[in-house]
Amino acid sequence: MRVSEIGEFGLIKLLARELGVQYLPSPGSKAPPGLLVGLGDDAVVTARQEGALVWTTDTMLAGNHFLPELTAWPDIGWKALAVNVSDIAAMGATPHLALVTLILPEDACVEDVLALYQGLKECAEAYGVTLGGGDIVRGPVFAVTVALSGRADEARAGGPRVMTRSAARTGDVIAVSGYLGDSAGGLRLLQDGADLASAAALYLRLAHERPQPSVSLGRAAVRAGVRCAIDVSDGLVQDLGHIASASAAGIRVEANRIPLSNALHETFPGRALGLALTGGEDYELVLIGPRPAIESLLNHDTTVTEIGQVVEHDGPHVAVVDETGREIPLPHAGGWDHFANP
Amino acid sequence: MRVSEIGEFGLIKLLARELGVQYLPSPGSKAPPGLLVGLGDDAVVTARQEGALVWTTDTMLAGNHFLPELTAWPDIGWKALAVNVSDIAAMGATPHLALVTLILPEDACVEDVLALYQGLKECAEAYGVTLGGGDIVRGPVFAVTVALSGRADEARAGGPRVMTRSAARTGDVIAVSGYLGDSAGGLRLLQDGADLASAAALYLRLAHERPQPSVSLGRAAVRAGVRCAIDVSDGLVQDLGHIASASAAGIRVEANRIPLSNALHETFPGRALGLALTGGEDYELVLIGPRPAIESLLNHDTTVTEIGQVVEHDGPHVAVVDETGREIPLPHAGGWDHFANP
Repeated sequence: MRVSEIGEFGLIKLLARELGVQYLPSPGSKAPPGLLVGLGDDAVVTARQEGALVWTTDTMLAGNHFLPELTAWPDIGWKALAVNVSDIAAMGATPHLALVTLILPEDACVEDVLALYQGLKECAEAYGVTLGGGDIVRGPVFAVTVALSGRADEARAGGPRVMTRSAARTGDVIAVSGYLGDSAGGLRLLQDGADLASAAALYLRLAHERPQPSVSLGRAAVRAGVRCAIDVSDGLVQDLGHIASASAAGIRVEANRIPLSNALHETFPGRALGLALTGGEDYELVLIGPRPAIESLLNHDTTVTEIGQVVEHDGPHVAVVDETGREIPLPHAGGWDHFANP
Repeated sequence: MRVSEIGEFGLIKLLARELGVQYLPSPGSKAPPGLLVGLGDDAVVTARQEGALVWTTDTMLAGNHFLPELTAWPDIGWKALAVNVSDIAAMGATPHLALVTLILPEDACVEDVLALYQGLKECAEAYGVTLGGGDIVRGPVFAVTVALSGRADEARAGGPRVMTRSAARTGDVIAVSGYLGDSAGGLRLLQDGADLASAAALYLRLAHERPQPSVSLGRAAVRAGVRCAIDVSDGLVQDLGHIASASAAGIRVEANRIPLSNALHETFPGRALGLALTGGEDYELVLIGPRPAIESLLNHDTTVTEIGQVVEHDGPHVAVVDETGREIPLPHAGGWDHFANP
C-alpha cells in the first residue's frame, strides 16, 4: 500500500498503533509512558530532567547513508536512532527523548515505513529512549532525521560531567570499546553481494546494520573520571584526528593493539587492520583519560582495550605505529565529507 | 560559490562565523552563550532547565513549503524556526534550544545557505533561542528541519502547566491573537506575481514570510489559567477542528468577530473572510478558556479578539455562524495533508 493512498494522518495513526500509543488526544486520555502530554498536540511534554541536557541530531538518506535494496527497513530504523544514541554515549550521557522526521517519496510503501518504525522502536526500547513524535513530509527522497536529547550528571561545581573532544592531555591512555572494522567489513559484504550465510558474515553484517552504542560504558567512564571521548563514526584515524585537533595533542596508537574480531580476520585476511583504521560506522567509544580511570573500566561488561597514548607533539597529530615503533603511512585522512567528490 | 567547492566542513565553519561562534572546540575555548559544551563535539550541552520540557520539530522543503524563486533566503530561515517557536508558544511554553538539519543539493550556493542562516539567527535572537548545531547532508532537495525544545512552568502538583488541544470545555470563550488570513493573502500575491509595492501588499507579504509567534501571549495565557490552545497553521477552521476532536466539543465561531486587517480587506475585497477561515500559516494563537482568564488577556500587548464559544454538541463539530446565527456552509475541511492529491 502506498502512503499516498492513506495520507499523512492515516500513516501517523498506523505508526502510533505500531508504537502502541494513542495518537489523537482526547479528554481524559493518558499520555504514553515517558510523556506528560502525548502525540497529536502542538508539542510533546516530558518531566523536568535532573542534570545537564545533551542534544544531537543525525540524518540518514536513502542512496547516501543506506541502501533500501540491501538493508531491511527495521535495520534502517534501528540505525537511524542508534547513531544518535552513540553521540549521547560519547558524551557520557543517558539518552532521553527522540523526535523523528520522515521525508517520504509519494510512492513510499506504508509497510516499509511501519517496518522502519519497528526498528526505531526496538532501539528506543533497548536504550530507554522515549519517542516523542516528529514530522512527516513528502519529498523526492526517503530520509529519516532523528533529534535526540539526553541528560548528563552534574558535577558538584554545577557544570556538566561530560566527555568532550578537547580534554585529551599528554600522558593520557587511549582505549576503545569492542572491535573495530566489523561494520566496514559488513558493508563490503553487502555491497559485493557476497554470500552472507556463514556465521562470520552474519556477525559482520549485524555489526553494520545493528550497531550497539555503549551507553552504559560511557556513563561508567565519565563517573570514573574520563573526560575525553568520541564515538567511532568516521573511522578510527579520522575520529582520533578530531580529538587531536580539539585537544591540540599528539595521538599515538599501536597497530597491534587495535581490537580486531576473528570474523573480520577470517573474512578479510590481510585487510582487517585497514578496515579498522579507516572503515567507520563502528559506533564504539574511544575513551581517553588518566591510567587509573581507564583501568577501572577494564572489567566493565563491554570489552575495553588499551590502544595507545596521548603524547607531546608540535601541533595536532595522529600516528599509528607498528611493533617496532615505526609510523605506518596512512592515506590522507581528508575525512568523510558529504559534499566532497571522490 | 557552490557548497561542493568548500565541502561540508568548510560550510560549517562559515555558518559558525555567521553565528559568531567558534565551531571547533580547542583546549580552553569557551562555548557560545547558552551552551555549556559548544559546537563541534559529539553533542552540545546546556544547563539543566527549570520546569517541564516541551519538544517539537518541523521541516520545510523547497518546492513544497517554500519557493526559493519567490522568497528571500533569510525569510526562509526565519520561518523555518518561527513555525517551531509557534508550536512552543501554543503550549504556553518558552523556546530554548534548536537543532538545525540541512539537506542540500550538490549545487546549492554557499551564499544562499549563509543567507538562510542569517534569518535563522534573527529569529533565534528575537525569541531567545540557542542554536545548538545540527547536521548537514547532501540530497536531491533543499530541506531545513528544526527540532526545538522549550520549557513550561510546573504547577504546584508537579505536572506541567501547558495548554493542550483536549482541554476545551463547554462554556469556554474562544479568542485569537492578531489578524487572520494575512499570510494566505501574502502568499496569493507572491504566487500571482502581483505588484508588491503598496503598503498593504508589503504588510501581507511580511505576514507570510516573517510570522511572529506569540510566545509572551502564550505564557501570559497559561499563567492566567487558559488550558486549551492551538496555533493557526493549517487554517482556522481546520485547527479548530483539531480542538473539537481532541476535546470532543462543539466550537461555534461568529464570522463577523474574526479579526481581519484593513490590508486584507483592501487587497482582497470580498475574499478576506475566506482567506481567514481556511488560509493557514497565520501562526497566531487560538486561546480557549473560562471568560475571566480570557478577559484578563485583552490588555496584553498582542491584540486578542473574542471570536466564539465552546458549546454543547453531539460529537466534535465546528460551526461558523453569520450575524443571524445561521451556520455558514464550509468547504469540506479534509485538512492539509502532505500526501493528499489536490
